[in-house]
Amino acid sequence: MPINRRFLLQRRPDGTPVKADFELVTEPTPELAEGQFLIRNHYASLDPAMRGWMDAEGNYMPPIPLGDPVRASTIGVVEESRAEGFVPGQWVMGLNALEDYSVSAIGGFTQPIDPSLVPNVTNYLSIFGAVGMTAYFGFLEVCEPKPGETVLVTGAAGAVGSLVGQLAKIHGCRAVGIAGGPAKCARLTEKYGFDAAIDYRGKDEAALTAAIAEACPNGVDVIFENVGGIILDAGLMNLNLHSRVGLCGLISEYNTEPRGIRNLWQLIVKRAHIRGLLIADYVPRFGEGAAKMAEWAAAGKLTIDEHVDEGLENAFDSFMRLFAGTNDGKMILKIA
Amino acid sequence: MPINRRFLLQRRPDGTPVKADFELVTEPTPELAEGQFLIRNHYASLDPAMRGWMDAEGNYMPPIPLGDPVRASTIGVVEESRAEGFVPGQWVMGLNALEDYSVSAIGGFTQPIDPSLVPNVTNYLSIFGAVGMTAYFGFLEVCEPKPGETVLVTGAAGAVGSLVGQLAKIHGCRAVGIAGGPAKCARLTEKYGFDAAIDYRGKDEAALTAAIAEACPNGVDVIFENVGGIILDAGLMNLNLHSRVGLCGLISEYNTEPRGIRNLWQLIVKRAHIRGLLIADYVPRFGEGAAKMAEWAAAGKLTIDEHVDEGLENAFDSFMRLFAGTNDGKMILKIA
Repeated sequence: MPINRRFLLQRRPDGTPVKADFELVTEPTPELAEGQFLIRNHYASLDPAMRGWMDAEGNYMPPIPLGDPVRASTIGVVEESRAEGFVPGQWVMGLNALEDYSVSAIGGFTQPIDPSLVPNVTNYLSIFGAVGMTAYFGFLEVCEPKPGETVLVTGAAGAVGSLVGQLAKIHGCRAVGIAGGPAKCARLTEKYGFDAAIDYRGKDEAALTAAIAEACPNGVDVIFENVGGIILDAGLMNLNLHSRVGLCGLISEYNTEPRGIRNLWQLIVKRAHIRGLLIADYVPRFGEGAAKMAEWAAAGKLTIDEHVDEGLENAFDSFMRLFAGTNDGKMILKIA
Repeated sequence: MPINRRFLLQRRPDGTPVKADFELVTEPTPELAEGQFLIRNHYASLDPAMRGWMDAEGNYMPPIPLGDPVRASTIGVVEESRAEGFVPGQWVMGLNALEDYSVSAIGGFTQPIDPSLVPNVTNYLSIFGAVGMTAYFGFLEVCEPKPGETVLVTGAAGAVGSLVGQLAKIHGCRAVGIAGGPAKCARLTEKYGFDAAIDYRGKDEAALTAAIAEACPNGVDVIFENVGGIILDAGLMNLNLHSRVGLCGLISEYNTEPRGIRNLWQLIVKRAHIRGLLIADYVPRFGEGAAKMAEWAAAGKLTIDEHVDEGLENAFDSFMRLFAGTNDGKMILKIA
């Protein structure tokens, strides 16, 4: 039996995760029961939402049990199978874990994928995975953008944010992105086609509010929010009448006590709303979304950046990039 | 010319208003220009939103200029007129000020009212005014309640909140109200028909969250929010999937730096939304709303409480009741 390296959650992080919260262990791969199959994981998606799964309360998913490997979406190849419809050599994608080998079963989340349909098999973890579908349905359905409107994207250099900016341009909107540091801001305008970029670093709420006002001379009709904190509060101060905030994430709050959002009164003044979005609601429509994203990608209208780190032994450092903002594109860990 | 007592804003309040921010002065009533008419104010509506008008930034209305009387909705009688369609002796309602006499003009906000259509002329400042219409449109259109759902009302003993609870019952919902102190809580269940009342006093966020969970065994489908702070945060923790928060007010934040809302992540987990509501959007439909409210009132399904204080000289103390919560029903100041 092959040796299985597994990246376990050993302790619930208190605020920012530290290395000692995890442990990389080696175990033999388990025997398969009838109906199960073994996946050789090749790539894992590292996402901010995984931080919430490490807490005792859980969020929209149950917490990861202590001593279990860290839950993650992976793509890999069926190594061995006692399950009808899954044959060795076949590529699959599913909600598995940060480990060399995962056991899955018929009726689970694991689905076959066809690498020949995409430029790179890792695209199943980015543009054709949860990230791409979050941008597609979260922006187009939750935020209801109209041509000519101004769309403000926070966390704009991130995996979802960079796609939302490009979708905004495809739909005839003005796209303004907020990101950390000049290199990311340059990427927004030069690579993703944002009309303007705002560097949040070194800006307090008043300075951010003014910078958004300057970059959005007609106000803000849509905010696609990934960050929270003063960045959301500054965005709220620039809302137009009857504007919409799609709340995708609050990454600034995941490792700390939230500062709290203080400008909600703007929702009253502007008769605006904040709507939470979770891609789970759109799973039955992924085919529709993936087809549109593929069409735009083929037409050269969508740039997808993937930041691939190598090695399960680097899982911790790679995951922490999401919070330090040192990843350039969708964070993916190459396992094999 | 009659003497006009006017309650002026002399200084912008720093946090909680103090008496020295205002001054009661007497002036002669001005000469009318062509197209103007003079109103003898009888009753003024005192509303939390007036606090925002006292700040330099304004909100959905421009700030009250320093040295001007405090802006307020009033009802009164035309005393003298150089305006076609407004004749002495006629009752009118409009956005005027805390003063004995207001000058209005054709094309302003002032409209004739008919006291014979309502049990009491003051009802034009409560059930048939902005308060009643905020409850009607804010609850029924913004919150989209369905029979059998659970509706949580904060500031439930207040003018709007008490009506929302009754509308929730009329529409077949479970109504749970949050208010301060046992007397108000008793009023919610005994007078307004709420199914349960929660006293927020002495409860921290965790205790409030638990109290809401206990009073709402099937979770919360709609929050009608008037308060903000930990009361909103506790409500958010009890939301059901695809639930709705109608944001009517944030009275806990009007006189202090907001604490900030920390549980917005629940909007993501529950795919819920917060929508700001302002009655200004529904002015063209007031006739429709007033007719329905009158129908329910006539059928004995709506209790409206008005708290009438007497005397312009008591304007400050009466206004501050709104923040101390010492008013029992819609706060109205009798001017004459």
